[in-house]
Amino acid sequence: MDNRYSFVGGKEGLWQVIDVRGIAGSSLELVKRVNVVNDAVAELPLDSSWVLQSFTSNIRYAMRDEVTALRAVQPVLNRSEAISAVLIPIKKTVQWWEMAQDERRAIFEEESHHTTVGLEYLPGVARRLLHCRDLGEPFDFLTWFEFAPEHTKDFDELLLRMRASKEWEYVEREVEVRLIRDGIL
Amino acid sequence: MDNRYSFVGGKEGLWQVIDVRGIAGSSLELVKRVNVVNDAVAELPLDSSWVLQSFTSNIRYAMRDEVTALRAVQPVLNRSEAISAVLIPIKKTVQWWEMAQDERRAIFEEESHHTTVGLEYLPGVARRLLHCRDLGEPFDFLTWFEFAPEHTKDFDELLLRMRASKEWEYVEREVEVRLIRDGIL
Repeated sequence: MDNRYSFVGGKEGLWQVIDVRGIAGSSLELVKRVNVVNDAVAELPLDSSWVLQSFTSNIRYAMRDEVTALRAVQPVLNRSEAISAVLIPIKKTVQWWEMAQDERRAIFEEESHHTTVGLEYLPGVARRLLHCRDLGEPFDFLTWFEFAPEHTKDFDELLLRMRASKEWEYVEREVEVRLIRDGIL
Repeated sequence: MDNRYSFVGGKEGLWQVIDVRGIAGSSLELVKRVNVVNDAVAELPLDSSWVLQSFTSNIRYAMRDEVTALRAVQPVLNRSEAISAVLIPIKKTVQWWEMAQDERRAIFEEESHHTTVGLEYLPGVARRLLHCRDLGEPFDFLTWFEFAPEHTKDFDELLLRMRASKEWEYVEREVEVRLIRDGIL
């Protein structure tokens, strides 16, 4: 299916793993490479350590003016210079998911400025948000970022600002997988 | 998985089909019974005509005050007197899904009063909302309703009011499956 993305941690794929860091809760096993597959991968492939399943979906929080602002500056994925990538799987708390839509939105944007802060790092950092909670996966979201190595410091600053936000009080598990595209499939 | 529900249209199950009506777009094949399975059913079981896959998820539009009002009067499923059920699969237009969160919310509640109108029919009508668009299914949602036969007229009125709303201008496919629980599995 078009909207499905699977991240296979093992020995294959375009992306070489530089580091796997547990930020909150248990980490993921360190692997050599990550294979990003635009499909469902229901079973763990041979010689792999983990597979994370996910899907793209409709907008959940952003308002029209925010969507318009984002689209004006959002870069595409697969830019030739964007050879650095970071995969961030996140699980939020039960308390987060039990909140009503307006309560989650207020923490996400009015208190944490998720979109507003993210906008400051565009067009340097490309991003794809993927959902997995509804698939019964161990994480709720995977976020995939791509940028040129010269934007690494900016990206690190973005992560620090996000993790200091009110929204992150509801993150109970977070892993950071740093990768580099070395072109060998 | 706990959050997965599959509706198998065929010859088995607790629910006998009284009528299958195409409201918009193509209908579903008329079957004898519907088997409601609290799990994923990846392949069409033998002797079945269709299977609709879905999952329950977090709240997408309702605000805290609306959630509180709903929870105060919402009945549970499987009440002994609620032997009438209606399954309504719905697909919304591309235009609906391309809207930002505030645009969809405004049509859903401020213009169409989805929750406010629904509240008038509680506690008579029990309801479970299921999502399927993210699974690549032919429908975006399935709504399952249960009520005692004496509430059929009220339920029919609720359907008419929903279908006359602004929100329904974005519905491109809708089927109505009427069922009765006859207790024979």
